[in-house]
Amino acid sequence: MQKIHIPYTVPKEKRATYLRNWEIATRGTGKLFMFAGDQKVEHLNDDFAGSGIAPEVADPKHYFDIAKKAHIGVFGSQLGLIAKYADICPNVPFLIKANSKTNIINKAERDPFSNRWLAMDDVIEFKKKSGLNIVGVGYTVYIGSQFESESFGQAARIVYDAHQEGMLAVIWMYPRGKAVKDEGDIHLLAGGAGVAVCLGADFVKINYPYDKPTLETAKKFREVVAAAGRSQVIPIGGAKMPEKKFLQQIYNQNHVSGTGGVAVGRNIFQRPLEEAVRMADAIAAVSLYDYSVDEAFKIFQGKKKLDGKSRPSESAIKSFLSLSF
Amino acid sequence: MQKIHIPYTVPKEKRATYLRNWEIATRGTGKLFMFAGDQKVEHLNDDFAGSGIAPEVADPKHYFDIAKKAHIGVFGSQLGLIAKYADICPNVPFLIKANSKTNIINKAERDPFSNRWLAMDDVIEFKKKSGLNIVGVGYTVYIGSQFESESFGQAARIVYDAHQEGMLAVIWMYPRGKAVKDEGDIHLLAGGAGVAVCLGADFVKINYPYDKPTLETAKKFREVVAAAGRSQVIPIGGAKMPEKKFLQQIYNQNHVSGTGGVAVGRNIFQRPLEEAVRMADAIAAVSLYDYSVDEAFKIFQGKKKLDGKSRPSESAIKSFLSLSF
Amino acid sequence: MQKIHIPYTVPKEKRATYLRNWEIATRGTGKLFMFAGDQKVEHLNDDFAGSGIAPEVADPKHYFDIAKKAHIGVFGSQLGLIAKYADICPNVPFLIKANSKTNIINKAERDPFSNRWLAMDDVIEFKKKSGLNIVGVGYTVYIGSQFESESFGQAARIVYDAHQEGMLAVIWMYPRGKAVKDEGDIHLLAGGAGVAVCLGADFVKINYPYDKPTLETAKKFREVVAAAGRSQVIPIGGAKMPEKKFLQQIYNQNHVSGTGGVAVGRNIFQRPLEEAVRMADAIAAVSLYDYSVDEAFKIFQGKKKLDGKSRPSESAIKSFLSLSF
Amino acid sequence: MQKIHIPYTVPKEKRATYLRNWEIATRGTGKLFMFAGDQKVEHLNDDFAGSGIAPEVADPKHYFDIAKKAHIGVFGSQLGLIAKYADICPNVPFLIKANSKTNIINKAERDPFSNRWLAMDDVIEFKKKSGLNIVGVGYTVYIGSQFESESFGQAARIVYDAHQEGMLAVIWMYPRGKAVKDEGDIHLLAGGAGVAVCLGADFVKINYPYDKPTLETAKKFREVVAAAGRSQVIPIGGAKMPEKKFLQQIYNQNHVSGTGGVAVGRNIFQRPLEEAVRMADAIAAVSLYDYSVDEAFKIFQGKKKLDGKSRPSESAIKSFLSLSF
Amino acid sequence: MQKIHIPYTVPKEKRATYLRNWEIATRGTGKLFMFAGDQKVEHLNDDFAGSGIAPEVADPKHYFDIAKKAHIGVFGSQLGLIAKYADICPNVPFLIKANSKTNIINKAERDPFSNRWLAMDDVIEFKKKSGLNIVGVGYTVYIGSQFESESFGQAARIVYDAHQEGMLAVIWMYPRGKAVKDEGDIHLLAGGAGVAVCLGADFVKINYPYDKPTLETAKKFREVVAAAGRSQVIPIGGAKMPEKKFLQQIYNQNHVSGTGGVAVGRNIFQRPLEEAVRMADAIAAVSLYDYSVDEAFKIFQGKKKLDGKSRPSESAIKSFLSLSF
Repeated sequence: MQKIHIPYTVPKEKRATYLRNWEIATRGTGKLFMFAGDQKVEHLNDDFAGSGIAPEVADPKHYFDIAKKAHIGVFGSQLGLIAKYADICPNVPFLIKANSKTNIINKAERDPFSNRWLAMDDVIEFKKKSGLNIVGVGYTVYIGSQFESESFGQAARIVYDAHQEGMLAVIWMYPRGKAVKDEGDIHLLAGGAGVAVCLGADFVKINYPYDKPTLETAKKFREVVAAAGRSQVIPIGGAKMPEKKFLQQIYNQNHVSGTGGVAVGRNIFQRPLEEAVRMADAIAAVSLYDYSVDEAFKIFQGKKKLDGKSRPSESAIKSFLSLSF
Repeated sequence: MQKIHIPYTVPKEKRATYLRNWEIATRGTGKLFMFAGDQKVEHLNDDFAGSGIAPEVADPKHYFDIAKKAHIGVFGSQLGLIAKYADICPNVPFLIKANSKTNIINKAERDPFSNRWLAMDDVIEFKKKSGLNIVGVGYTVYIGSQFESESFGQAARIVYDAHQEGMLAVIWMYPRGKAVKDEGDIHLLAGGAGVAVCLGADFVKINYPYDKPTLETAKKFREVVAAAGRSQVIPIGGAKMPEKKFLQQIYNQNHVSGTGGVAVGRNIFQRPLEEAVRMADAIAAVSLYDYSVDEAFKIFQGKKKLDGKSRPSESAIKSFLSLSF
Repeated sequence: MQKIHIPYTVPKEKRATYLRNWEIATRGTGKLFMFAGDQKVEHLNDDFAGSGIAPEVADPKHYFDIAKKAHIGVFGSQLGLIAKYADICPNVPFLIKANSKTNIINKAERDPFSNRWLAMDDVIEFKKKSGLNIVGVGYTVYIGSQFESESFGQAARIVYDAHQEGMLAVIWMYPRGKAVKDEGDIHLLAGGAGVAVCLGADFVKINYPYDKPTLETAKKFREVVAAAGRSQVIPIGGAKMPEKKFLQQIYNQNHVSGTGGVAVGRNIFQRPLEEAVRMADAIAAVSLYDYSVDEAFKIFQGKKKLDGKSRPSESAIKSFLSLSF
Repeated sequence: MQKIHIPYTVPKEKRATYLRNWEIATRGTGKLFMFAGDQKVEHLNDDFAGSGIAPEVADPKHYFDIAKKAHIGVFGSQLGLIAKYADICPNVPFLIKANSKTNIINKAERDPFSNRWLAMDDVIEFKKKSGLNIVGVGYTVYIGSQFESESFGQAARIVYDAHQEGMLAVIWMYPRGKAVKDEGDIHLLAGGAGVAVCLGADFVKINYPYDKPTLETAKKFREVVAAAGRSQVIPIGGAKMPEKKFLQQIYNQNHVSGTGGVAVGRNIFQRPLEEAVRMADAIAAVSLYDYSVDEAFKIFQGKKKLDGKSRPSESAIKSFLSLSF
Repeated sequence: MQKIHIPYTVPKEKRATYLRNWEIATRGTGKLFMFAGDQKVEHLNDDFAGSGIAPEVADPKHYFDIAKKAHIGVFGSQLGLIAKYADICPNVPFLIKANSKTNIINKAERDPFSNRWLAMDDVIEFKKKSGLNIVGVGYTVYIGSQFESESFGQAARIVYDAHQEGMLAVIWMYPRGKAVKDEGDIHLLAGGAGVAVCLGADFVKINYPYDKPTLETAKKFREVVAAAGRSQVIPIGGAKMPEKKFLQQIYNQNHVSGTGGVAVGRNIFQRPLEEAVRMADAIAAVSLYDYSVDEAFKIFQGKKKLDGKSRPSESAIKSFLSLSF
């Protein structure tokens, strides 16, 4: 059984809740596969309409149809969107993305700042009143931006408050701003990963140099994983790319770099529903389990079924908890 | 009977209130016809005095005289103005516009920010103490402005707090600022619509390219409606234009684009009272009901009466509610 | 008896207080003559020392000596100053000016912002603990300034909170800033008046084009009065000018433009005490009552006494109130 | 016996406390001699080490050794410093300087803002828990700075809150910033004095044109004293200067300008302990009492002892109070 | 026995706690040896990977392994990191670094501001709920930065709140920003030290001119120690340098300048574990005890064991406390 480090910011009476959320979100694998769904703000409608994008992608419902059927860990999106569509997949574990910004202002013109939309108090209240299975929160920090200091205040607040309630905290950590020369520089990404663990993040969502898809890159990326320490690194999926090539990268991250999962959006949702589900399952195969790239690709092709783990039952978690305390 | 998606941000004990407000505001049609009345701040006195504007328009009372007689869904304006004049039409459903700015500063000079005037706590208190029929709130967001981040914080707060009280939330969503090249670009408007649904808005008031009054435009505008998903799109009415041409556009929005209502100001209130009422009824005819443009134009001409729906009675709503829970 | 529109923001249990404050401030005339006394901050010592200014004007006590003896409606000044000198005229109705700024920074260099000094909570507490006859609050908004948005938030807050306590709210509404070409443009002033009523102001203190002292100007100024609607317009008095000419302007405002009173400072207080009192009484004559300019000028000259109304007694107000509810 | 104007912002139940603090701080003379000790932040180490400065000045303890022995009214400094050293002179009346800034940034480069360090709530709590004899608070406002508006909000808050607790409020009032051409202009200083009384300050610490040490200057300075009205003017002491010349200026301020005390730092503390004490006593002689400059200079020289007033005993104050209410 | 000045900001009922924290942190020596561990944010990954850095340094766990074994006073780091790793050394006294920033933005481009991550309320709650041995807090102020004013507000708040709970407050005090010509200028550093004592800091962490490693420098540095007064000066350790040279500097600071301890990071943690522990013990030898540089160097070499003091037992502290009250 994996070892889970419960941070001291989780009070004793919330440790069981934290472990439950951890087990649910990672399906007992210790790795997090986040289906990332905050693009409607971050990228406006660019990801949802245009050539090569299936018509059904245009409807926000598409996210939730996928989340319902695919073998994901959590679906991460804005509270308002989840509130509108959660009836489609009420049992899916949700992660509330607490901040977002649009991409209209060019980063060369003005340093980015993504302001908190709602406070953890609201998230907690929403979780309680809605009865939805909200297991964590996410927040984007742009280190190197002139607004970094404001972000740090909000991020530290959110992580701390999440832990106080036994919820998982995920930091999207992106170096960005006029002072940042190369957003994909691995040494810089490692710096960001180090910041995330100092913020107390459980997971850190971070850029990966997909433009250099070599084994060497995956090895170099170990610096990021090392710097993050007990914060698990989950690379972003980025723009849609050829399936096998993408699966290979995820495989390398998991088996070579030592990442703790992955966060994928466009590579999943820009496809028709059934294809999207198969792609998600293939990603689960290489990121959560020990499938080879070839096997995972067969899952994508529909030639093979994923034999993944069900989410642990509440009773299974309870028996696990009885061991832990 | 239409299907209403009650967002999860509305607590169980407020669902009946939310449905009531929805039914009242949409007159049971599921579509919102907002008589928009925030121009005294947004446009200063430009809309109220000058050539081609009836003298009675100069008096703020004119808004409320129209609201009393016309077949509108809600009248939307600033809390202070409503507080001063609601005795004229105390039973009209009001929507409180929570922010406003003047048009003195050119948008080319400085990115726009419309600051919240009062918080939802105040609106709730005002509703309770005044006994007025306040069914919702509105808030303007300028995406692409350098102040976008501040707006997002205020907007998310207002939508969430409105839903907590069972009130409707309408977002005025305008791309604007130095980084915005074309405020009327449909793909960009679709992006804004997507942002609105992520904020949890029930309705999103959005620009419409009236300068391109073709069927093709109405078809292209479907991208906006799709992106908004369960947030209903209500296009702005914009500057006064020839009646029939205007009614045709509203018709197209409703029947071709699939919008969820309309928000009209100047095309109604810049006329003498009776003409304004007839114009409002004609707009209701094409936006809420299945009237043809010709029939609606006859309503405007006074040659025909609108046969619209009365607002549902409280008992009718109650019986409806009994079905829903 | 005049008709008073009590705004819905005044709770039922405070309506009697609001009417009392209204009656007291307007001396039962429905018009407000404010003796404006915030110049020690707004103009520093420019108005209080120099050629043509009586030596006794240098002492802040002068304000209060005048307020005690003259036929004014209210004396408006900063809370701190009133707290220091109210023993001189403890029964005078006071209006607390909630914000102020100095004139050191040139408006061409930097857009103006006048920050709130204290919150309404403080004003309410001060009123209760001091026992002073505080009937209202005032706040300056500079529309067109880049800080307009911040001002709107503070102004809306103050008006709302004042009404919650049954107090009168007066907005000083000045277009100013680099984007404002002509601060005295009547159409723009009308815009500002419209903003004031949307804020819920009971009175709006506004610039008047004294440099164009024609009847035509007074007629054009009707646009301002119309735009303000149920917010009563009280023009500023501006810099000291020849008495008869000044009285004529006030007369025109009252009888031609339809204003709801006047707010005068320098034209009163820059004189020796007795002359100041006579000037104030003359202003009352033309602004509150039906005196002709010639009669009023005789009052200034000391050749005639003002036969104005005493402030209504509390019992008179009570009987009035009994009619209203 | 002097007449004390208790501001209306002091609640009835705190009037005795206010009078006590007033009597203690002014030693029953009605004038305030503040030993000013905020230079370690305002001037960094420039005042404490260098040629012509006694070695013992380097130790912050020096301030407190002087405060213990010299005939001062109050010692004004930052809360943190007082908290560290008050055991040296626990009975000295302290005034908490609530804001401070360093002098590193040139005022020509950036307009000054001195941010509040702690709120009055903290000062009150500190006073209660520490048992120290804290009689008032101080706050610096830079009028003419672009940050003036923020300062006004903080200053008004602090004065009001101080009075609510019966404490004295002293405003350091300095015109400064790019818009200020001459910081020592008497007319401008008078403007600042007027602002202070509008803020409700009990004392206003203000620049004095020591570079023009003529009787004429002292006469001109009467404009400042007049503008301040019931706020007592206490000129700053400024940089160290020849003793007799300095005493003459203080004498002129007191006897010609009509100031209400003085605030001296460097002219006292940059000397060895005993000399510093003698200088302070000499300053007391000309600012609080009717000593001539020659007599005061003898005190400085140690040729004469100051025959000043002891601080009034609590019982003396009580009997005084019994007269006042 | 050393004399401890308990600041008046520590309430009576917390004095025992303050003394306990002081004794624990200084190991009863009165001097503080802080093992500084905030570099993962301040320097990103630069200190943790690269030539000359042991591979195990890459793992954040390395900090805590050293803290467990070395003869340090406290380990200072961000709350989030401590929460993740404190199980490794749960009994080590921790100091929470309350703010941090990255080094991405060049200080020549933009003045630095390090924003508070969490408030003292959170630190207190964390201490109580976690049961960790948290003895103090730290905060960085950049004097001379244009954001200095904001920092002062946060710093004063944190020091005051820490003392209210009997915790130690350490200020990192760095002159920095475009207005600062020489960050290592001793007179300027002395100014910063003076600011720290005015903030009420117990210890001030401050730059030391290691580039001028002469006895003369250590003597000049006395100005800093004098200016800090009862705030103890703990120089930073800075970048890694030859061991003996470094130990000599620490020795000089302690024995010549009169500092109150030292704060070292890179000179310790950039080594393999056992070497790091030996280096830390050597630093303890010259900074807390009377070891010569040669003896200390032998400790580093493993040729000698440090004979330092155990942390005082709770009972020893109690008996000490019984003497103090």
